[in-house]
Amino acid sequence: MSTPERLSASAIAAAVNAGRSSAVAEMEATLARIAAYDAVQPQVWISRMDPNALLAQARAVDARMAAGEALPLAGVAFAAKDNIDVAGLETTAACPAFAYRPDASATVIERLEAAGAICVGKTNLDQFATGLVGTRSPYGIPRNASNLAYVSGGSSSGSAVAVAAGLVAFALGTDTAGSGRVPAAFNHLVGFKPSKGRWSTRGLVPACRSIDCITVFTDALEDAALVDSILAGFDAQDPFSRPLADVAISGKRIGVPRPDQRVFFGDLQSEELYARALEVLAEQGELVEVDIAPLLEAAQLLYGGPWVAERTAAVEALLRANPDAIDPTVRSILEPGLAMSAVETWNGIYRLAALARHAEALWDSMDALAFPTTGTTYRVAELAEAPVALNSNLGRYTNFVNLLDMAAVAVPAGARHNGTGFGITLIGPAHSDLALIAMASAYLDAADLPPLPPLDLGDRMDTVKLAVVGAHLKDMPLHWQLTSRNAQFVGAFTTAPTYRLYAMADSVPPKPALVFDKDGGEIALEVYELGMAEFGSFVAEVPPPLAIGTVTLSDGTSVKGFVAEPRAIEGAEDITRLGGWRAYIGGL
Amino acid sequence: MSTPERLSASAIAAAVNAGRSSAVAEMEATLARIAAYDAVQPQVWISRMDPNALLAQARAVDARMAAGEALPLAGVAFAAKDNIDVAGLETTAACPAFAYRPDASATVIERLEAAGAICVGKTNLDQFATGLVGTRSPYGIPRNASNLAYVSGGSSSGSAVAVAAGLVAFALGTDTAGSGRVPAAFNHLVGFKPSKGRWSTRGLVPACRSIDCITVFTDALEDAALVDSILAGFDAQDPFSRPLADVAISGKRIGVPRPDQRVFFGDLQSEELYARALEVLAEQGELVEVDIAPLLEAAQLLYGGPWVAERTAAVEALLRANPDAIDPTVRSILEPGLAMSAVETWNGIYRLAALARHAEALWDSMDALAFPTTGTTYRVAELAEAPVALNSNLGRYTNFVNLLDMAAVAVPAGARHNGTGFGITLIGPAHSDLALIAMASAYLDAADLPPLPPLDLGDRMDTVKLAVVGAHLKDMPLHWQLTSRNAQFVGAFTTAPTYRLYAMADSVPPKPALVFDKDGGEIALEVYELGMAEFGSFVAEVPPPLAIGTVTLSDGTSVKGFVAEPRAIEGAEDITRLGGWRAYIGGL
Repeated sequence: MSTPERLSASAIAAAVNAGRSSAVAEMEATLARIAAYDAVQPQVWISRMDPNALLAQARAVDARMAAGEALPLAGVAFAAKDNIDVAGLETTAACPAFAYRPDASATVIERLEAAGAICVGKTNLDQFATGLVGTRSPYGIPRNASNLAYVSGGSSSGSAVAVAAGLVAFALGTDTAGSGRVPAAFNHLVGFKPSKGRWSTRGLVPACRSIDCITVFTDALEDAALVDSILAGFDAQDPFSRPLADVAISGKRIGVPRPDQRVFFGDLQSEELYARALEVLAEQGELVEVDIAPLLEAAQLLYGGPWVAERTAAVEALLRANPDAIDPTVRSILEPGLAMSAVETWNGIYRLAALARHAEALWDSMDALAFPTTGTTYRVAELAEAPVALNSNLGRYTNFVNLLDMAAVAVPAGARHNGTGFGITLIGPAHSDLALIAMASAYLDAADLPPLPPLDLGDRMDTVKLAVVGAHLKDMPLHWQLTSRNAQFVGAFTTAPTYRLYAMADSVPPKPALVFDKDGGEIALEVYELGMAEFGSFVAEVPPPLAIGTVTLSDGTSVKGFVAEPRAIEGAEDITRLGGWRAYIGGL
Repeated sequence: MSTPERLSASAIAAAVNAGRSSAVAEMEATLARIAAYDAVQPQVWISRMDPNALLAQARAVDARMAAGEALPLAGVAFAAKDNIDVAGLETTAACPAFAYRPDASATVIERLEAAGAICVGKTNLDQFATGLVGTRSPYGIPRNASNLAYVSGGSSSGSAVAVAAGLVAFALGTDTAGSGRVPAAFNHLVGFKPSKGRWSTRGLVPACRSIDCITVFTDALEDAALVDSILAGFDAQDPFSRPLADVAISGKRIGVPRPDQRVFFGDLQSEELYARALEVLAEQGELVEVDIAPLLEAAQLLYGGPWVAERTAAVEALLRANPDAIDPTVRSILEPGLAMSAVETWNGIYRLAALARHAEALWDSMDALAFPTTGTTYRVAELAEAPVALNSNLGRYTNFVNLLDMAAVAVPAGARHNGTGFGITLIGPAHSDLALIAMASAYLDAADLPPLPPLDLGDRMDTVKLAVVGAHLKDMPLHWQLTSRNAQFVGAFTTAPTYRLYAMADSVPPKPALVFDKDGGEIALEVYELGMAEFGSFVAEVPPPLAIGTVTLSDGTSVKGFVAEPRAIEGAEDITRLGGWRAYIGGL
């Protein structure tokens, strides 16, 4: 298949309203695009409407147009995350045992359909919207649209990929911890998370019901604004709906994390891309450094405090009756909620109220925050090995936002070498939604981002990450064996504290041996990413007693890396105390 | 002692500001009044400032006046409920084992002192502000200022009595379930409960921290408005403080409970006084009948739902370490909070959010509610027998107010024959405080209430309640034995469902016998209140086989009443199925 173009809801609706296109023609094109992408990632979807029913809906839209209606989303196909009720399809929340057939559509679906949009199907997600990765679903793992080896981000995984792959012009997601923003970043999308209560959540399977938001993914900001113009409004049937309000902010004072609090988990490319984004923002306003410690403490409450029990409350019956029906990682998150007490809950609520005071005070000295959406990204294979810890890393800059009643717009801010997206999120006080969109628009105009990397249609070279600890380190004698293979530097890390490093006795050039020892220490290493064929040729050149095995990093993930046969330490010097080869070489 | 006059903060401050009085002179008078009332109810107070220190404070106020300051509360002595921190005095919350000496005064105390007011001491309360009665304190039971046999109401018992007895011009209370309103009603006072977050709660021992309010008791509305003008305002140090807002309401559409939902627990005098208040209100606006079921359901959450665990959270350490240090009734309320779960808590929060939608919708069709503050009142002796059930009755019209984010002003609406106060409360949406005060003022102007009953200085005749079931019922042959003794009708009730009623065989005039039987039914009766001497003479006239014993009512309380010797049922007809004597006589 050819790489599909991304779609514009505004352009489609304009064409249909002007008679240059029709809802039927748009739906036929949509069905063709969806069918083609099924060859790449059918797991984007959990269920889809019958094509004939969709064409009938399109004809009905065309009939409304012919009758003289002006429909702001005429003929625009869209997708909805499968925790949002759509009449005619099951709602699964990515858990077959939880599935039910709703009597009615969610308020947001009703409003979009009234505006002429047509919902084509329900997208995959991290089960019960619990995750920021997209790997926690029995319906398969939607992968990053630009690099299938990487996670799409979650929990709104399928919705983000559906828009990134040009299947629909927009898709609804949801956002509790960052599920409407993280997948936007990874897939080069706009992810708009309105203020709590701005869009109705009636008809949504709750994650943390008191703070859940429905969100939208689009290619362009103007489409997010267009969808907001349809969906914003009070809904008396939603107990958490709030009357519309409009907080004007100038956007000239932009909060950024204090430099020592900018954590990228060793991902130097993300660090560089964020620095570049700040250069752009610095031309638009004044950057104000923020101590983000209170925000991080609030973020901890989401999975380390009583808000976990909101997730538990949402699925309590299933969790008690049929726990094996729940994804093991999700279950490991939900089950502790059963044992949490009411007293803990109130104490958490009090702590959050105090932290909210800190957060509110931010707005005295700045208009909005501009944070990395995430500090890094991960491969699907990495997530499988440390599913909770790496997920938590992804939420560092997102988890606090809903707890502290903020609005957010995630926008693209460049691509990593591997094609995955890096993004920044503009975060403002509740009801600053429209001002944030305007601010984000000014940023994108000025950022002049390079063209999108191509979609990964499954024909991309597969890659592997390799940890080096000695002579292959940057500026070391054998480093050329990596650069000549076009290896990309991923980052500087350390091993888990279970390794010893030895300077081998008669090695030329001098080389170390990394040996597993549960009483060992953490050893510095560098991780590179290579094409699979290049990796093979590299491994073929490794001389004994060294070998390429598996090395565990300090965050619990594993990568391929240099290990050693037992004979490597005969006559060798234990240099574990130095923490790495560079320190040893520097001391020679 | 002579009956003291009630005080006016506005008048005192005006006199001191005009030089017609001084803070020292006012304090000397205050100390004399307090000392005199110690002969009646020293248990109003838990602790008091040293008189010399108070006179020194008064001199300091006079010095500020002399230096040219204009102080809106110059020289006004006040009292604070002993769950509010006042530097220099212990805070006990009516629990000696909980007591601590605060480093600083609460924000409200600081603001009042800055305005020239002087805190003379800390008043008694239901322990941890848990109660609406005033009987739950190891420091004694403050009793109704107008009738010492009756409860003062709580939990702000001492504060209400201190103002009602003319000891201070105003006193701070607190209000979670109704503690700032119920004692106002019983003691013929104004009780102003501001919107949540309008007055800082920094320095307050929490009851339910998320909904606690500090309140004020005064004789006149203008004093409540004066205190509000000092205390209203955002406090960044209080996580539950809110920015000031002003919701204007016309007060012309006045919500009242649907007639079938007006429950007075058999208290016909309260029912009549409420009807009279509604007649006054009907001249000021349109009465709109309200289905109060959603309000009552919200009210149930306060003691039947997770909000109990807020109380538990506030004293968890003591409750676990030294439970015997807690009042047994209070402890029986707090302990279940330890076993409540986080999931229950969130489900309660969701239910409340849904009920809040119902409540908000009220304001579409009315400006404010005008409810009885309580449906009835109780004697101290009655509370001792059913301390939880009767307390709950007192909260029927108050418990929902803070949960549903409303403001309230309790005002007097007349006296029962026994001297205790009946009141109504005007309840409006959050931030309608000033409009409610204006509405209450218009009501009081129009109500033209009779003069206050005299203070009960301990020399009042003691009374007793007597249940009659047969020939002494109203319009029955022996009823004159009550009327001739000046007995006051209290109400029509039924017994607990553990009685049988028999028509005795040879009784002239026909008389029944009430006999305890656990498999019996509920029997209709009437309760009258008599002076103790009159009661004695009445008992002396009761012929065998009848006797005056103790009868349990359907609400679990006991009163004196007609019982019978075993021989009374020889040849008698069991008429239990008829439910009462009146039905039997009617069928003869």
